[in-house]
Amino acid sequence: MGKRIYNFNAGPAALPLPVLEEFQAELLDYKGSGMSILEVSHRSTWFDDVINEAVLRTQRLLGLGDAFEVLFIQGGASLQFCMIPMNLCVADRPVDYINTGTWSTKAIKEAKILGKDVRVIASSEDKGFSYIPKEFAVNRDAAYLHFTSNNTIKGTQWAQFPDAGEVPMVCDMSSDFMSRPFDVRPFGLIYAGAQKNIGPAGSAMVIVRKDMLERTPDTLPTMLKYTTFAEKNSMYNTPSCVVVYIVALVLKWLEETIGGLERMAQINREKGVIIYDFIDGSAFYRGTADKDSRSLMNVTFRLPSEDLEKKFVADAQKEGLGGLKGHRSVGGCRASIYNATGVGAVKSLVDFMAEFERKQG
Amino acid sequence: MGKRIYNFNAGPAALPLPVLEEFQAELLDYKGSGMSILEVSHRSTWFDDVINEAVLRTQRLLGLGDAFEVLFIQGGASLQFCMIPMNLCVADRPVDYINTGTWSTKAIKEAKILGKDVRVIASSEDKGFSYIPKEFAVNRDAAYLHFTSNNTIKGTQWAQFPDAGEVPMVCDMSSDFMSRPFDVRPFGLIYAGAQKNIGPAGSAMVIVRKDMLERTPDTLPTMLKYTTFAEKNSMYNTPSCVVVYIVALVLKWLEETIGGLERMAQINREKGVIIYDFIDGSAFYRGTADKDSRSLMNVTFRLPSEDLEKKFVADAQKEGLGGLKGHRSVGGCRASIYNATGVGAVKSLVDFMAEFERKQG
Repeated sequence: MGKRIYNFNAGPAALPLPVLEEFQAELLDYKGSGMSILEVSHRSTWFDDVINEAVLRTQRLLGLGDAFEVLFIQGGASLQFCMIPMNLCVADRPVDYINTGTWSTKAIKEAKILGKDVRVIASSEDKGFSYIPKEFAVNRDAAYLHFTSNNTIKGTQWAQFPDAGEVPMVCDMSSDFMSRPFDVRPFGLIYAGAQKNIGPAGSAMVIVRKDMLERTPDTLPTMLKYTTFAEKNSMYNTPSCVVVYIVALVLKWLEETIGGLERMAQINREKGVIIYDFIDGSAFYRGTADKDSRSLMNVTFRLPSEDLEKKFVADAQKEGLGGLKGHRSVGGCRASIYNATGVGAVKSLVDFMAEFERKQG
Repeated sequence: MGKRIYNFNAGPAALPLPVLEEFQAELLDYKGSGMSILEVSHRSTWFDDVINEAVLRTQRLLGLGDAFEVLFIQGGASLQFCMIPMNLCVADRPVDYINTGTWSTKAIKEAKILGKDVRVIASSEDKGFSYIPKEFAVNRDAAYLHFTSNNTIKGTQWAQFPDAGEVPMVCDMSSDFMSRPFDVRPFGLIYAGAQKNIGPAGSAMVIVRKDMLERTPDTLPTMLKYTTFAEKNSMYNTPSCVVVYIVALVLKWLEETIGGLERMAQINREKGVIIYDFIDGSAFYRGTADKDSRSLMNVTFRLPSEDLEKKFVADAQKEGLGGLKGHRSVGGCRASIYNATGVGAVKSLVDFMAEFERKQG
């Protein structure tokens, strides 16, 4: 094995090392089956146990009780942008969306392509999506309220979720899913691409409140209906077995090694304090998000010039700190510090940032 | 490492051992990146090289030239059942389908759900899908002809593809893709779930002739348009990176270790002769497919009783021969002998079958 770097990628992103090691150890022979987990049938008890474990751990970690279905659907969050309005719209009732960045904008676009009556009730586009909107009212006739809990590209995050009253909330949690506990009851549907906090790329996890399934129209193609996945434990057709398997391992790590979401949130807050305190104390680095809207998952910042940013990213890579380039649509720098990126990695980053600043001095 | 079994699973199925070993060796540190291939960004040169290699090898193996796009789309062949009519139908022109089993039936169902004018021009349903239809005519006004090249569940396979004249053929090749060379020119679109011959579950490969892309309606959701995937080298959103990576390794094995599709077809024919000659020479085992329609990928057979079939599957598992149970919808036994299941595995199976028969004597 070569040297592992500190990985600040925005997604696909770092996975817990013990997860990768367990996967590696049993890659040729999964639990005495004589086959790789990549080769066992999805109709076998080996895989049944895997998917059931992933579902059960999700139910426990989030306190879902019996009210929700936990589904694995391929196509990432991007496919959910169209599946949500296809499945959850109700005749004659508009849908409310809050626009906090690139991914919200895409979700809105897909609902409009489908001809849905979309009301954007709040947006932070006026200031380059650098903040989370505070003043807005959810319409009581909305079929659902859609928002994005964490904005990977802009580095903002909802510290507290919106109050939608009786309107079911639908949330893209791709980039802060399982990073903190929250009250699931106001949610009709939660979805997350696996490739940030819970696994490799190749599946979304969709958590849907059972009563929402009654909205699915019969006329949809089978693979675009949530009911298809709910009725068959996500195995109407072959799921992305390897992704589900690694998600199960990550959730095991989260429960058994970390100790659950309260503890995970505590660690994530600690990481946030370390890096944001450093940035706030520096005249060289400048955070791009409003302080009250900052993300604990994606820390976006600028340096005095684009040339310095380029040098920063390149020098960091040489020092074993990878993935610090900002998204191509906004430039600058970004450190994604998901669950698997520990306090040690963040401290090393801050040390490097201090040293880099000193050298330019 | 434990003992590896001979894996006759229908899909997910056996992968070439060298592929798994290479994956395992570099699982914690991909080519000196200091990250797993599961952790690198899909926008990195590391992953760019992976997907480009998978596409290039596919182009070379199938002799695609410049006329086709090679796409990776999540959701398996089942999502293609609806994406095909969504993208490739042409106003006022019906579509022709040939029904040779479970998967064709599902493809037809999804086209009908979408309200398309579907003509089933041939079917082998009258005899339990035990043969490939010979007498049929493709309508010249059809927007496309859809058929399934190999029927995993029923154990039948098109020895020669239909003649559709000028009508573009659309083919579900999930279970015999890359098992033999063929003339790609009459095909408008070829698709295959990865989990049989080219990788693990979690992506379909879709090969689409460039002129067919002009049919995609603007009104479709972004993730359901082939043009979205074609314009972005399958990376409009994050693809199933680990699946694409393993597909690239399998195709490398196919080109460099096996030596290409002609050689692969020769090996597959050899395997077929071994097992079908044995079945034909036995009064104990009985093949379920018509001789001229037999599949070289999925060998379906019955024993004198269901009790004996149960015992056969269980005893075989004990002897290190796994996955021999027939599909739950038809019962009986099935040996799936895809590319990665070698001549040695088939010989071992035949030896076991002979011994099992003797013991019952």
